Amino acid sequence: MLTLLQRALPLLPLTIAVTLTSISTISHADDSRLTAKESDPKTLGWMQGFPPPADKLIAQPSSDFFSFPKLRWTVCHIRELMPTIEVSRGIGAPSKLSYELDKNIDAIPFIPTGSNRPMTWRQSLDANYTDGIMILHHGKVVYERQNGCLNELGKHAAMSMTKSMTGLLAEILVTEGKLDDKMLVASIIPELANSGFGDATVRQVMDMTTALDYSEDYADPNADIWQYSEAASPLPKPKDYTGPNGYFEYLQTVQKKGEHGAAFSYQTINSDTLGWIIARTTGKAVDDLLSERIWQKIGAEQSAYMTVDAKGTPFAGGGISAGLHDMARIGSLMLNKGVINGKRLFPAAVVDKIAAGGDKAAFAKADYKQLKNGSYKSMWWSYDNPAPVYSARGVHGQRIYVDPAADMVIVRFASHPDASNGKNDPISIPAFQAVANYLITK
Amino acid sequence: MLTLLQRALPLLPLTIAVTLTSISTISHADDSRLTAKESDPKTLGWMQGFPPPADKLIAQPSSDFFSFPKLRWTVCHIRELMPTIEVSRGIGAPSKLSYELDKNIDAIPFIPTGSNRPMTWRQSLDANYTDGIMILHHGKVVYERQNGCLNELGKHAAMSMTKSMTGLLAEILVTEGKLDDKMLVASIIPELANSGFGDATVRQVMDMTTALDYSEDYADPNADIWQYSEAASPLPKPKDYTGPNGYFEYLQTVQKKGEHGAAFSYQTINSDTLGWIIARTTGKAVDDLLSERIWQKIGAEQSAYMTVDAKGTPFAGGGISAGLHDMARIGSLMLNKGVINGKRLFPAAVVDKIAAGGDKAAFAKADYKQLKNGSYKSMWWSYDNPAPVYSARGVHGQRIYVDPAADMVIVRFASHPDASNGKNDPISIPAFQAVANYLITK
Repeated sequence: MLTLLQRALPLLPLTIAVTLTSISTISHADDSRLTAKESDPKTLGWMQGFPPPADKLIAQPSSDFFSFPKLRWTVCHIRELMPTIEVSRGIGAPSKLSYELDKNIDAIPFIPTGSNRPMTWRQSLDANYTDGIMILHHGKVVYERQNGCLNELGKHAAMSMTKSMTGLLAEILVTEGKLDDKMLVASIIPELANSGFGDATVRQVMDMTTALDYSEDYADPNADIWQYSEAASPLPKPKDYTGPNGYFEYLQTVQKKGEHGAAFSYQTINSDTLGWIIARTTGKAVDDLLSERIWQKIGAEQSAYMTVDAKGTPFAGGGISAGLHDMARIGSLMLNKGVINGKRLFPAAVVDKIAAGGDKAAFAKADYKQLKNGSYKSMWWSYDNPAPVYSARGVHGQRIYVDPAADMVIVRFASHPDASNGKNDPISIPAFQAVANYLITK
Repeated sequence: MLTLLQRALPLLPLTIAVTLTSISTISHADDSRLTAKESDPKTLGWMQGFPPPADKLIAQPSSDFFSFPKLRWTVCHIRELMPTIEVSRGIGAPSKLSYELDKNIDAIPFIPTGSNRPMTWRQSLDANYTDGIMILHHGKVVYERQNGCLNELGKHAAMSMTKSMTGLLAEILVTEGKLDDKMLVASIIPELANSGFGDATVRQVMDMTTALDYSEDYADPNADIWQYSEAASPLPKPKDYTGPNGYFEYLQTVQKKGEHGAAFSYQTINSDTLGWIIARTTGKAVDDLLSERIWQKIGAEQSAYMTVDAKGTPFAGGGISAGLHDMARIGSLMLNKGVINGKRLFPAAVVDKIAAGGDKAAFAKADYKQLKNGSYKSMWWSYDNPAPVYSARGVHGQRIYVDPAADMVIVRFASHPDASNGKNDPISIPAFQAVANYLITK
């Protein structure tokens, strides 16, 4: 008989990938580990050959496909390891991206937080194991690089940036009057009445100020995160499994701990509850609504996709994979407050609310040392850098970074060995700010 | 402990779907079963609701998701049930399809084989549980209908039409001099030297005239097809499983029985061996080469995808799902002998060889009663109807049907309750011929 831990391992990445943002203790800085160049998946030969030799194979049910350095291959190949659902771009022509590349950007210098050794923008990319990055300024692409496992025909795991897409959809529905964010969750999802979510408001779920008895302590084999992983797995459950099957069944088991609204607590289960609220409100699952409201409207080049549980429920907390160019279109849509390619997709107030940020006092209790003046609103992060920015963030370095003062968007896909963004922020934050400064003054 | 049969069930459809073409005994005509309208997946409510109620759920590991009527949902949702790999369309603009719809087609009458009751074209669609159908004449779309689980943003399982894509790629390589079809398989794939494939020529594999000790008798729990299914499953193997893992390992276990070249024998394992030959010859797996040579070049609207085994090997014998419009582009490419949108993708000789058909004497031994003057060449079917046509055929009614004399292509996705095409040919064959006659004479 398998232990709970062993059972959960095959699908561990589904959840671990999106929940580690606030956990830094699980990742270890290790100066002896492979560099970006050394760990390039092509260099290491993962999945090359017909068939790949055993020592180059990345496959289920091994539990290590999301560990470094294998994760540098896996982040571009999620669909090859598990079931997924399409987020259709439609069948029309994609919009053209406008390019005005600036070769000076590579040499922009900055000083990493806590360091006294300057670094250039170009050096920062490998230092953070960047797979794809684009900078848009005044609506034009001024910088682009795709490498590692990524190319322009590929897609990359967005990790917890998925939460920001779910939050954006919810904020659109609220602003359009289709969803009342003051309503209690139980009034929309009766199945959650007896759970910890029942007496939380939709807004508390959107801003992750719910108070839940839920542990993401990976060192504890009885932590809730393992049961969540196992419930969420799209693979057949073991014969003796009697726990919840799928996101929705699991969410019903979560109990309350404390008072809602007092403190920010970054827990993926809020995003999946929000996905459920969206589905019940609109009659459309998150993948479907995301296609209808966003992906079919932005001139996307590629359809995106989402991982699913064994009942076909999309993983609203972390399941999206998408092309880099299309993530840039999303960033541009946000920067321009709902307008893209001359068309308005939703009211400007949607972005105004996200950009204004959330409850700073509640956020401060979570002690994110590098996110100055930070908050979390509708599943987007807000912080000062030093001007106010808002950002979608996913473990291992994923970013949509919107800097209205600089009229700049940066989107990044990465496969940093450390899941926690706390490990790449000392380079990411000053590097992004240095580019903003350069673009403002050039 | 699971029996072999039980183990194989979850992934049974992967193989059953592509191997039943020659088996009619397993399917039972049943006049009391649900009609196309009654079995429409929307009407039956499959996978509706958040979450879907238990009796509307179609999911792993249930073994019945490919049985009627559930299969009418499943054929549009393969990727939601198992891992898949993308066949990228690229990121450019799709080509425009030219429309000149002809409303008279619905009323075209014909008499089904073995019947004396006339039927109209429109009636034939529901009679054959058609999900999507297009007719192209002189390069224009004269008829289109998508329904059931399919719409223009969706994709449908192509089943064994996948074999014809694999065969087309191989014929392109042969015609371009990159693959010698007279070579023995063992000289390209040394791992197959001691298998039944070892002393077969590439051409014998392409035309399925290999003589192999391989059984697809579904009534026999020890038939090879079950081991093939289990080996091919992308789901984690049972702990006590000691058999081959993946297509390539399985193919090495197949032994010879008789003499190659004497008789046509429709066996999916030939297509997977051909996929392996293509990969070794080009350094690209079938999904990759299909994207590069075909999908990125035809102006496709949607990327296609293929199912994979647990090592990421695409299922060259049956794994493709694609959009209907893009299958029509493939049909048009064939009809125009390698030219589409004014560009030549491969030499005309590729199609000339396929259109000329294969060894009729070898084919006659397999006793396909409805395919008059038939043969099988490079994994395309040839028969007279009454003029020579060639066709990609997949179980449950999938077709690309190219009629050069009528300058006509018909593509069809369907979810007929019976897997065997022998069950829908009595309607399909005269219906397609009636449309050809109408178009020629109009």
